[in-house]
Parts: sequence; structure tokens; C-alpha cells
Amino acid sequence: MVVGTARIRFGIAVRRQRNQLGWSQEELADRSGLHRTYIGQIERGARNISIDNMECLAEALAVSLSELLKSE
Amino acid sequence: MVVGTARIRFGIAVRRQRNQLGWSQEELADRSGLHRTYIGQIERGARNISIDNMECLAEALAVSLSELLKSE
Repeated sequence: MVVGTARIRFGIAVRRQRNQLGWSQEELADRSGLHRTYIGQIERGARNISIDNMECLAEALAVSLSELLKSE
Repeated sequence: MVVGTARIRFGIAVRRQRNQLGWSQEELADRSGLHRTYIGQIERGARNISIDNMECLAEALAVSLSELLKSE
């Protein structure tokens, strides 16, 4: 497993969960307390997100952090 | 779920996995490429660890990131 794949998997899972809820990135940003552009960067796997921010997203999406990091 | 609990759960899971392998913090530091004092801080939930470093630890411990973040 090459380092850096977890970011990509996490971003894909956040986007999938957000879309399932029918939310825009703006909506997820409001609910998680994070910035909209940051949400976009996370979904693209472009940011080395911290565990606290990962937890904010999981809580806003009402899904476990473990779930968001499950391999495909 | 209060933000900051994921750090604590992750730290506990890293310590448990390390102990199961019979490794010192030094050994895990060598295998993950992270500093020994940083390992100690992570295990105490004292650092807001990034996803890339979480992945380094999971890979060194030969366990999935999702596994390390499972709630008790």
C-alpha cells in the first residue's frame, strides 16, 4: 500500500456520502465548520487532512470515521 | 460524538497493535519512519495526526486504517 492512497480513498468516500445526502460542498462546509474550498481539496485527495478535521466531516455526514476509510 | 475522541481511539488502537506485535515505540518509529517521541504523543492522543502519518503507522503495523479507527 503506497502512502497517500488513504487521502484519495477518504476523499472519494466523503464525496460519495455527501452526494448520497444530496448536499453541495457548501452545505457540507456549513455543517462541518470547514471551508468550502477545503472540502473540494479533501474530496480530490489534495490535502493531508488531520484526524480532528476528518472527525468533523464524519460527524457532519453522520457516518463513522472507520467507514469513511474502508478500502473499496 | 465530541471532536477529539478519534485521536484518543486511534492512539489506544496503535498502542494495542504495537503491544500485540511485541514492539517498543522505538521499533514502531523505525518501521514507520516517524520519530519515537511523536509515536508516544500519538498513543496519548496528544497530536492532531495527519492522514499520511496515520497511513504510515497502519502500514508499519500491517493493519488497515479503518481497523485502527473502529470504535471500541
